[in-house]
Amino acid sequence: MATDGHQRITSNADAPPQDVRNPAGEPVLDRRTLLTGAAAWAGLAAAQAALPSSGAAAPRQGTGQERASALPGQPPRPYGQRAAFERAVRLAGPFHSLTPLQTLDGLITPSALHFERHHNGVPVIDPARHKLLIHGLVERSMIFTLDDLRRFPATTRMAFIECSGNSGHEWQKPTGKTAQDTHGLFSVSEWTGVPLATVLREVGAKPEAAWMLAEGADAALMTRSLPLADVLEEALLCYAQNGEALRPEQGYPLRLLLPGWEGNANVKWLRRLKLGAAPFMTRDETAHYTDLLPDGTARQFTFVMDAKSVITTPSGGHRLVTGLHEIRGLAWSGRGRIVAVEISVDAGRSWQPAALQQPTLPKCATVFRLPWRWNGQEHILQSRCTDETGYVQPTRQALVAVRGTQSYYHNNAIQSWLVMKDGTVQNIHV
Amino acid sequence: MATDGHQRITSNADAPPQDVRNPAGEPVLDRRTLLTGAAAWAGLAAAQAALPSSGAAAPRQGTGQERASALPGQPPRPYGQRAAFERAVRLAGPFHSLTPLQTLDGLITPSALHFERHHNGVPVIDPARHKLLIHGLVERSMIFTLDDLRRFPATTRMAFIECSGNSGHEWQKPTGKTAQDTHGLFSVSEWTGVPLATVLREVGAKPEAAWMLAEGADAALMTRSLPLADVLEEALLCYAQNGEALRPEQGYPLRLLLPGWEGNANVKWLRRLKLGAAPFMTRDETAHYTDLLPDGTARQFTFVMDAKSVITTPSGGHRLVTGLHEIRGLAWSGRGRIVAVEISVDAGRSWQPAALQQPTLPKCATVFRLPWRWNGQEHILQSRCTDETGYVQPTRQALVAVRGTQSYYHNNAIQSWLVMKDGTVQNIHV
Repeated sequence: MATDGHQRITSNADAPPQDVRNPAGEPVLDRRTLLTGAAAWAGLAAAQAALPSSGAAAPRQGTGQERASALPGQPPRPYGQRAAFERAVRLAGPFHSLTPLQTLDGLITPSALHFERHHNGVPVIDPARHKLLIHGLVERSMIFTLDDLRRFPATTRMAFIECSGNSGHEWQKPTGKTAQDTHGLFSVSEWTGVPLATVLREVGAKPEAAWMLAEGADAALMTRSLPLADVLEEALLCYAQNGEALRPEQGYPLRLLLPGWEGNANVKWLRRLKLGAAPFMTRDETAHYTDLLPDGTARQFTFVMDAKSVITTPSGGHRLVTGLHEIRGLAWSGRGRIVAVEISVDAGRSWQPAALQQPTLPKCATVFRLPWRWNGQEHILQSRCTDETGYVQPTRQALVAVRGTQSYYHNNAIQSWLVMKDGTVQNIHV
Repeated sequence: MATDGHQRITSNADAPPQDVRNPAGEPVLDRRTLLTGAAAWAGLAAAQAALPSSGAAAPRQGTGQERASALPGQPPRPYGQRAAFERAVRLAGPFHSLTPLQTLDGLITPSALHFERHHNGVPVIDPARHKLLIHGLVERSMIFTLDDLRRFPATTRMAFIECSGNSGHEWQKPTGKTAQDTHGLFSVSEWTGVPLATVLREVGAKPEAAWMLAEGADAALMTRSLPLADVLEEALLCYAQNGEALRPEQGYPLRLLLPGWEGNANVKWLRRLKLGAAPFMTRDETAHYTDLLPDGTARQFTFVMDAKSVITTPSGGHRLVTGLHEIRGLAWSGRGRIVAVEISVDAGRSWQPAALQQPTLPKCATVFRLPWRWNGQEHILQSRCTDETGYVQPTRQALVAVRGTQSYYHNNAIQSWLVMKDGTVQNIHV
């Protein structure tokens, strides 16, 4: 088992499986190996420590391969499942579950792993019987079936949804162990539905209609008041998510989508919209979803989610080996596009620009990436994003200076991950 | 149950469920109702028959609503499932399954409904044991584990994959009954992986390497030769699909992604790449995947999928009611972006531009939409797309004039759907 040998493999290897890791546990793709590919990294890695010239050491070479399947495989399935080897799950309390951000790749959250939050469980609703009532300050109250809504001109867009309570446990102490714990009330989907504006033209919104009550059909009758002028341009009455019907936890068969607004305002299992002249002051906007400030007053109707980012790889619970890695994460803003993400590996003393996966989309997450060579020393990793309004994600200290530590919602502070000398990564406040 | 009455509902309706459809079966959202919303349609519907002025008839108004849930709902699940009411499935033969395009919304195909094609079943592969061998005309043969590949700089992109046999049964007669039958070997996903070019720099491709053999680990050992220069810019070694690991049917844990190229070239369960000076002439590129022409010769290595489109709503198997609808579908090209889609409702005699869902992405599908008011008469619906190279999707007659009817692969002809007077829709050749 010469795992460090120079054996050249020139045919389809039918050798039995071999351990391609050396006795010290170093992966095949070690620093020497990567040196020969330095060109691939050069553009983004320029700000990193200079790499020695390539070719000085022979790269480690392949020494074993698995056989291909010798038996016929499985037949098609009508509705597929993920591979049995995959174990990522939503961590759940009784009324919420968290997306395992630290295990995901790319932008879209798989629907099966989209976070959920509800106040009295996920209702089972027969879409053939579900209806949406629109009434109040309208020319004519109307009820729409799903079939009715599907006949209107539709639109499809990517958008994030973030619970306003995301990172809520992080105000005072670094509580969460993983990115799922700290940022998992956040997911990204493709949504399809009919613009609210189209349907409101059907019912004839009266000029004095300034607020809209949105009510869910769940047992908690989740209900929020929304300023009509602010939601009218982008709100969707959504019936599809990632190509198929909404998942039950995301409001099947109908939800409100308010791109960029806190999750609870995107009312799920939507059954009723009522137009009025003033906020309706429901339980869900008085007992919940306000932000207590240091002076004892509370912010209310703080709907728009401020710009925020998090490094998901590496992040809490991961364990690094020395050598080159790609720092990856997600950045988003409720006010539009992300225009920049910077990475610090020294607790915010210096910053480097990350590459943004294109195209960037408004009120959606953006994947960012930066190559990084871990040298085995302690490092504190941070990401900081800027949105198209010029807003820059604040440090925890700057946020606390304004908001105090009695807030629960709307914590968009810069996240810090401490990389220890043993390669483990943990949540830290700096 | 005055379903046509003018009862105004001004409070949260707790009335028992009522039938909101009139005795004739007309939906609530009938023509009169929609007239009041004509502004929503005006821009796109200008080319349609002029609409009479609104307000002449009182719209039908809501008369009943379902109750909200009276009992607590279901608790969170670690890995979610779709609603039990949803029934769309992949139709399957022993070695393939078809995406139910006529039931989907938006751009992304749910991973559970992504089409599949394999030559000897779906292998079960332990990702911890899977390896990729790269050898042949390289400086150093190497073997990469999944963990190795995940440390390289990654990229994420949307791309369609279309089997070259998609619409293969449609050359001579209109065989399929639905869009799933005729076009269901086509799906769209978000893919994440490492660029092939990055990994080839690691092994050091020799200057004389002009072709690359890609071999799968399935029991059929699916193997294709690929011209290296043509794939190097965009090929990905893909490990993630729609945010999570590849699904088994799409190559778990590793596949080749060649955006815009016929599905079989995107080798799944990828275990081996061998660089050579010439095509390897494997069974899968001699016994399969050539196009027999009228003169008895055959086209070979016809990798790039030409521009194609299909109306998915309404399409075969649907049944329309009179009144306004939105014609919806998908258009794509292996050569780049779709720049235009036109719709005909008169078998190609006249055409109107469809709206394209933004942003359009290269080598991905584009959703197109056009409002249409069905008047109860027979109509033949067609869509015709143009890609950024200026290529226009051909009529069936134009394609057959060049290719004959002995071809099986690469049928990208315009699809025709016949809307009958009873509202049923069927596949037709014109």
